[in-house]
Amino acid sequence: MQATPVHQHLVTRTPSAYEYPLLVKQLLVNALAVSADQEITYRGELRYDYTCLRRRIGQLASMLSSLGVKSGTTVAVMDWDSHRYLESYFAIPMMGATMFTVNMRISPQQIAYTLNDSGAEVLVVHAEFLPLLERLRKDLVQCPAVIVAPDDGYAMPLASSLPIAGEYERLMEAASPDFAFEDVDERTRAALFYTTGTTGDPKGVSYSHRQIVLHTLATAATLASPRDGQRLHREDVYMPITPMFHVLAWGMPYIAVMLGLKIVLPGRYLPDVLLRLKRAESVTFSHCVPTILQMLVDGARRDSQDLSGWKMIIGGSALSSVLCRAALAQGIDVFAGYGMSETGPVVALAQIPPGAAPIDMDETVRKRCMAGRPVPLVELRVVDGDMRDVPRDGKAQGEILLRAPFLTLGYHGKPDASEQLWAGGYLHTQDVAVMHPDGYVQIVDRIKDVIKTGGEWVSSIEIESLINEVPGVQESAVIGVKDEKWGERPMALVVHRPGDAVTVQEVRAHLLALADANRISRYAVPEAARIVFLEEIPKTSVGKIDKKRLREWID
Amino acid sequence: MQATPVHQHLVTRTPSAYEYPLLVKQLLVNALAVSADQEITYRGELRYDYTCLRRRIGQLASMLSSLGVKSGTTVAVMDWDSHRYLESYFAIPMMGATMFTVNMRISPQQIAYTLNDSGAEVLVVHAEFLPLLERLRKDLVQCPAVIVAPDDGYAMPLASSLPIAGEYERLMEAASPDFAFEDVDERTRAALFYTTGTTGDPKGVSYSHRQIVLHTLATAATLASPRDGQRLHREDVYMPITPMFHVLAWGMPYIAVMLGLKIVLPGRYLPDVLLRLKRAESVTFSHCVPTILQMLVDGARRDSQDLSGWKMIIGGSALSSVLCRAALAQGIDVFAGYGMSETGPVVALAQIPPGAAPIDMDETVRKRCMAGRPVPLVELRVVDGDMRDVPRDGKAQGEILLRAPFLTLGYHGKPDASEQLWAGGYLHTQDVAVMHPDGYVQIVDRIKDVIKTGGEWVSSIEIESLINEVPGVQESAVIGVKDEKWGERPMALVVHRPGDAVTVQEVRAHLLALADANRISRYAVPEAARIVFLEEIPKTSVGKIDKKRLREWID
Repeated sequence: MQATPVHQHLVTRTPSAYEYPLLVKQLLVNALAVSADQEITYRGELRYDYTCLRRRIGQLASMLSSLGVKSGTTVAVMDWDSHRYLESYFAIPMMGATMFTVNMRISPQQIAYTLNDSGAEVLVVHAEFLPLLERLRKDLVQCPAVIVAPDDGYAMPLASSLPIAGEYERLMEAASPDFAFEDVDERTRAALFYTTGTTGDPKGVSYSHRQIVLHTLATAATLASPRDGQRLHREDVYMPITPMFHVLAWGMPYIAVMLGLKIVLPGRYLPDVLLRLKRAESVTFSHCVPTILQMLVDGARRDSQDLSGWKMIIGGSALSSVLCRAALAQGIDVFAGYGMSETGPVVALAQIPPGAAPIDMDETVRKRCMAGRPVPLVELRVVDGDMRDVPRDGKAQGEILLRAPFLTLGYHGKPDASEQLWAGGYLHTQDVAVMHPDGYVQIVDRIKDVIKTGGEWVSSIEIESLINEVPGVQESAVIGVKDEKWGERPMALVVHRPGDAVTVQEVRAHLLALADANRISRYAVPEAARIVFLEEIPKTSVGKIDKKRLREWID
Repeated sequence: MQATPVHQHLVTRTPSAYEYPLLVKQLLVNALAVSADQEITYRGELRYDYTCLRRRIGQLASMLSSLGVKSGTTVAVMDWDSHRYLESYFAIPMMGATMFTVNMRISPQQIAYTLNDSGAEVLVVHAEFLPLLERLRKDLVQCPAVIVAPDDGYAMPLASSLPIAGEYERLMEAASPDFAFEDVDERTRAALFYTTGTTGDPKGVSYSHRQIVLHTLATAATLASPRDGQRLHREDVYMPITPMFHVLAWGMPYIAVMLGLKIVLPGRYLPDVLLRLKRAESVTFSHCVPTILQMLVDGARRDSQDLSGWKMIIGGSALSSVLCRAALAQGIDVFAGYGMSETGPVVALAQIPPGAAPIDMDETVRKRCMAGRPVPLVELRVVDGDMRDVPRDGKAQGEILLRAPFLTLGYHGKPDASEQLWAGGYLHTQDVAVMHPDGYVQIVDRIKDVIKTGGEWVSSIEIESLINEVPGVQESAVIGVKDEKWGERPMALVVHRPGDAVTVQEVRAHLLALADANRISRYAVPEAARIVFLEEIPKTSVGKIDKKRLREWID
């Protein structure tokens, strides 16, 4: 017997036909065709148009090329959100090189680890970070050539132990805008960054050109397609408030460029500057983590500033109903997005369909705070321990598994972690969620943060959000602590608002009332001794509650 | 010396990771996740939801499989726009087979040629076309197995010389909805149809899964992203009025399904039925050729029907300013699209950006009638004879060349025509256009229809549209005829409205006045003897003026 060959009838390509690999450079084509004179501004101080952006992308490539960068080289960037960063988002991948976006919020040791692991040969760095770089230099196996951007009152260093190649703008001036960007394989690594999990070394996550283009198209179609409400359109003015070193700032700069939007790059995030830029540049579309949103809401409230017409996606950690209400009250059209460093990242968005039956404010807030509904092409499953889909009843909990054309295909040089991520051919998010009958996905917790007590699973996040409803509470963190009898018990760490007094009894009474009303399990209410007030809750570099650190404190 | 290997750094894929080929089946994923109970109706008579659509796609695949269809088989469809056609759009490619959409408007000989050339093994056919099929059977090298859809008052034939496999609904009932759709290579041929040029045999154009998915994403992003006006959103109700056998009905059914829209399939196009369905099903988004638009406008005017809220893309042939105004007056939000059978097809759309400076009605109409602005990822160039880009000044003419990830990569079995199409690595549209400073592309003519007279190029289409402005003129065609002295001279063939009288002098006076005003060249005005009145202008099967036939008449 002979094996039957797989019967594949591929479309035939005539030799002269251009097969069109999906490349980052193509995201510029339409912007230049229809929005060539659209504006890009850095902090409202520097302005240029898309034609100039394209010219500077060519100059940056020529400059990097003269420093030896070629297809396959890794170029690191350490900067606040700037026009330089936007130029890097395109020029570096377009050369066939890899853009490594350095996270400056992690420890110097971790930064050194990521620079070493990435093999970066050139580093574009804001002058503000030179002292940091000098400090960690001794830990670098090989120090990359350093291009310094001395803006914002910083001067070029007179002396440095670093191999400084020159100043960004000086080198740009000397470089030709005419750089021939050759096609590369669409699976070429375009971008690299590191995710700092709660254990072990940071893990390198990379994306190919193909993945970036597909993420851009699918997310743009999702953001643009609602009739109205939480949508992005071609008249929007875009300002990132998630750092561009973080998960390609969720892919939004690529979407903004593809659609030819006005782009406002705010530099380092200072709430007053952000609020000033929002007003002065008529910003209408941003995205940030809850901590920043809280600062913006507080700042606007202080100055009685109306933020109407500002659409804002919240990611990074859960949007609480309290913060959601506060943002809505200030005029911000806020809604959550869902994704991870490993997932492209946007895989779901909590847009409210206007065609649905009228819903009240409570329901609106609930929906806006969910992970939302999946983006086209994303297969999002919520499964039990045997990888069977749980019912779409808003109750059955399971882990979110994903397939999409823009999920990372593995961690850099970490085969075991990569296989674990992709066990069974689905990306395991380690997020526990319920699926509602209308297709909305609601994250309940991280698998490792779920508290197993008395045979029940208690969502730490749900209890946190309920505690946050208690008047005077600013924020809270709930973790599981070992218990002889119950396996684990919830422990609540609470921060009260400055000036407000809150008692353990008030927190407990609120939760007990909810347990009486069958909203939560009685097992979910911490004992009085396990409700503790803190000055501040420790956060990770990306602003999430650092439960690892909390557990270390408690243990 | 050794050759340097090409330095490619591809992202590495861990063995368990799912690489996610771009496949037609993935366009269903989101619709089922978020719009499972959305409605699909056939003529308002039959209704089912997306869950049922998915079940029937499984049944259709099982049914076809039992007839021997497998990966690589070609399955032909001959039907009006129906739920069956929508099922075929998915089930056939999802099996790895090729859906061949048969154009019934071409001659029986040509239909037989295309059936033979395609190698179709199974044919799904509306009972209305059985007599036609019986007639052309003698020309078929091998007659495919025939599945008959006897709806619309047609009964199953009692006797037939055709190899009839059964009735569509009977076979569906007997088939299992659980068909395992395996992944195929994303370059697998998903769809095939034939384009009937003005010379030679019909040419087979095919598209891969990858191309269909990318066309769906890019066109959806374009249609959805304007702030308002000529846009598609998730609350729209979609009804195709371009036959689904024609260029995958411009890719719109795939977009509608991906976005989970309500879909109205109108069967055979009868103006009264279309207008009734528009009202009864609250249709808001359609697309058609100018001839159909004219019928709809006439029908609505007759019944004083307001068509407000109906967005309509016009393609296939040029949208005249007269028809555009008439449609707008009737409430239709009409705008042109641009593309060809070979181009995916949508490569540009004449959406009006609301952010642009206020424009008057004349300007609005002018813009809506243009080819429009390119879709993201589409590289659209207007070049002179040496493939140099012409200035974007609204005046310099050149041929439109294209690159996009969804252009056909060659004609089926026609290597010479394929190489000609792709000469120099760009798809040659043979459309002559000007590019305006704001990025709008305006088609001036087909290369072969441009009239070369007295050293100037005269656009036949421009002269037609100017003649159509003369009161009483219904339509006109302008072709070049040989002339000893001038090389060519324009000849105008004019049809007047029933009841209206128009004279040669009126037509000539109108054009001469425009020449006096420097709107057109004096060479563009035909002599009185070359202005001829006709009863009717011959059209091709897709409703375009058949200039080939006109030239044969004149010669």
